[in-house]
Amino acid sequence: MTDTSRRSFLRGAAISGAGALVGGRVAAQAAPDPAITELQPWQQYLGEGVDARPYGMPSEHEAHVVRRDVPWLTADPVSSVNFTPLHELDGIITPNGLCFERHHGGIAEIDPGAYRLMINGLVDTPLVFTLDDLKRFPRENHAYFLECAANSGMEWRGAQLNGCQFTHGMIHNVMYTGVPLRLLLEEAGIKTAGKWILPEGADASAMTRSIPLEKALDDCLVAFKMNGEALRPEQGYPVRLVVPGWEGNMWVKWLRRIEIGDQPWHHREETSKYTDLLPDGQARRFTWEMDAKSVITNPSPQAPITHGPGPTVLTGIAWSGRGTIPRVDVTLDGGATWARARMSGPSFDKSMHRFYYEFDWDGRPLLLQSRAHDSTGYVQPTKDMLREVRGENSIYHNNGIQTWAVNEQGVAENVEVSS
Amino acid sequence: MTDTSRRSFLRGAAISGAGALVGGRVAAQAAPDPAITELQPWQQYLGEGVDARPYGMPSEHEAHVVRRDVPWLTADPVSSVNFTPLHELDGIITPNGLCFERHHGGIAEIDPGAYRLMINGLVDTPLVFTLDDLKRFPRENHAYFLECAANSGMEWRGAQLNGCQFTHGMIHNVMYTGVPLRLLLEEAGIKTAGKWILPEGADASAMTRSIPLEKALDDCLVAFKMNGEALRPEQGYPVRLVVPGWEGNMWVKWLRRIEIGDQPWHHREETSKYTDLLPDGQARRFTWEMDAKSVITNPSPQAPITHGPGPTVLTGIAWSGRGTIPRVDVTLDGGATWARARMSGPSFDKSMHRFYYEFDWDGRPLLLQSRAHDSTGYVQPTKDMLREVRGENSIYHNNGIQTWAVNEQGVAENVEVSS
Repeated sequence: MTDTSRRSFLRGAAISGAGALVGGRVAAQAAPDPAITELQPWQQYLGEGVDARPYGMPSEHEAHVVRRDVPWLTADPVSSVNFTPLHELDGIITPNGLCFERHHGGIAEIDPGAYRLMINGLVDTPLVFTLDDLKRFPRENHAYFLECAANSGMEWRGAQLNGCQFTHGMIHNVMYTGVPLRLLLEEAGIKTAGKWILPEGADASAMTRSIPLEKALDDCLVAFKMNGEALRPEQGYPVRLVVPGWEGNMWVKWLRRIEIGDQPWHHREETSKYTDLLPDGQARRFTWEMDAKSVITNPSPQAPITHGPGPTVLTGIAWSGRGTIPRVDVTLDGGATWARARMSGPSFDKSMHRFYYEFDWDGRPLLLQSRAHDSTGYVQPTKDMLREVRGENSIYHNNGIQTWAVNEQGVAENVEVSS
Repeated sequence: MTDTSRRSFLRGAAISGAGALVGGRVAAQAAPDPAITELQPWQQYLGEGVDARPYGMPSEHEAHVVRRDVPWLTADPVSSVNFTPLHELDGIITPNGLCFERHHGGIAEIDPGAYRLMINGLVDTPLVFTLDDLKRFPRENHAYFLECAANSGMEWRGAQLNGCQFTHGMIHNVMYTGVPLRLLLEEAGIKTAGKWILPEGADASAMTRSIPLEKALDDCLVAFKMNGEALRPEQGYPVRLVVPGWEGNMWVKWLRRIEIGDQPWHHREETSKYTDLLPDGQARRFTWEMDAKSVITNPSPQAPITHGPGPTVLTGIAWSGRGTIPRVDVTLDGGATWARARMSGPSFDKSMHRFYYEFDWDGRPLLLQSRAHDSTGYVQPTKDMLREVRGENSIYHNNGIQTWAVNEQGVAENVEVSS
């Protein structure tokens, strides 16, 4: 957005009242705006004191900013997944109260005093740690995204869910504090035959996944804090495994046991689930790393353009399980022309990145797309490119380019353009 | 902590039960630990579903992790300040629900639809912005600490408050999303005579502070999001001013007006308050930048050592209004010998930093101190060094070194050692 365009647009907000259009809202201000010239209620009375909020909550005016589920998505009477309201957020940190949750046995409520972590299998000394034991090891702090392998899964069959909260909301980005898993494994002593680990959850589903030892010794964390405070119950309180860049269900929550073995276990969640059936009947398996991906969060179906033509801020998020996101391209015309977005905010390895693109909207229909480039040189593909390789059976690992169609009224909807 | 020490310590946790000491807690395990060998309640029943928590909250087991006030600190029937529970947090992000709050007229509850920001005074075009108008300007994302100038103020007269939550808890560190103030001022056009700005709050106290134009054009933000979501009411919802590195009350909350003038206004909060009366009767004024400071958060009076002798993790936070913190020193013997702490987590300009020091506690009394070095070469002074220069009248700007005494039982208390 040029200085001129901003100036011309906001001249309209001059107190003189000359401007009939302020940010697109029609407010014929023959007189100065009473909302600023008259005393407002909150200026006249002592507000609520601090004692009322020992643990603070959002304003009542933000009550619509919540995690939501998709009723028809899960058969259970109780839904087992909800979605992060990406269109209401900004920056790269997902607040703990809004991090999407997915579980296979409900939210376990664990007494931290009775919490234990066992390391057994191919080790010199099987060990059991209390929560206090874990806090006696050196800690590290890292921000990582967690994306469910099924994020955008419904979109394989075409545009279905009308909002980025539902198409891309199975992701969050959190600053974790935890102990490198390597230190705990060294404590037990891995036998030479040990090549894989099997983390197990303490919830009713006893979630398990096979993880190669190399990854476990590389950057995995046994985490007990998220964004500064204790893990939330739905995120694995008191302890979860952090597996940077890899699909979400490997980040075992309510972590109770880590078994060391000489080969993968081929359990349910890595065979019948979280695998991709290809056209030839073969299945892609152990596709752990999340490929580079991006989505425009504003404008989007849940966040239309309400201010009419003129200066408009487009923003979105991008991430890669293989590194950082040095570049995101955006298009307003369905891919005919692309422009480079502006990145803003910290760029961490395997963490969410924020991009912006400011433009003067002429009020004509838009076909919005974003395309992420990661630090390995990988470029986010179109959905058609993915279908060409993986066919039509897939549910998981859809990192294809998302399209939003915006009409003259600024209303956005989920569409697909052939590519 | 050496590998040997860790190994010898945790051998005690072997399932064999050989170890009577697990992390210092006496648990004579002739038999394996039932907490890990027996089925626990949370493994046997379906947990709560996602629908119950559209906006998530901490575990019921974390109910003690809250902001607290000091009843005798404020005369009002309603306290006007509470403190961040630093001893319960880790990393560098302060979760929104636990960010300390200080206000002069209670928490204003503003209707975002009726929100307005006026820029007037020495400008070419006085302007009024709605919240939607502000969101049409380019945004940036930055993490900054906010410290109240009165943080540690009670400690000028010696060790008084028994816990880092109360001695140092008027600080938080948040990732903000906002519009550079410079862009809004350029929009209005600053007249040549304009040298200062006066931000004004929309709360009942109409808080105002004089800020030099150079700072306003440098790195100030008009922020509407904190840690990804909308500002909290007690943090200025829907819009606050962010004044990186400068004392907290300049970060005007519920921002309603910015006046441009040719000189400072000398209002109440920069004359009778937030100034330091020196021995000669003169007062230090406009001491905006917060000097480098640090505090050990664990162990501390609210967080004693409970595991007895052996491997112990010491941690704390450090910050500087003038840059980053490349180095923190810690001492276990009241300053006789110093060791360099390990920094972990992102290092941002004018942001909180996290440090750790792992050591084998021999069970003897400790005198714990931390000493921050900032990127300008400034070294955090002792309280006595500050008193020598500023005398005994001060309340504000105490960045002196804090001492915790730990006894043989691991109990910590706030003390002072002459230096």
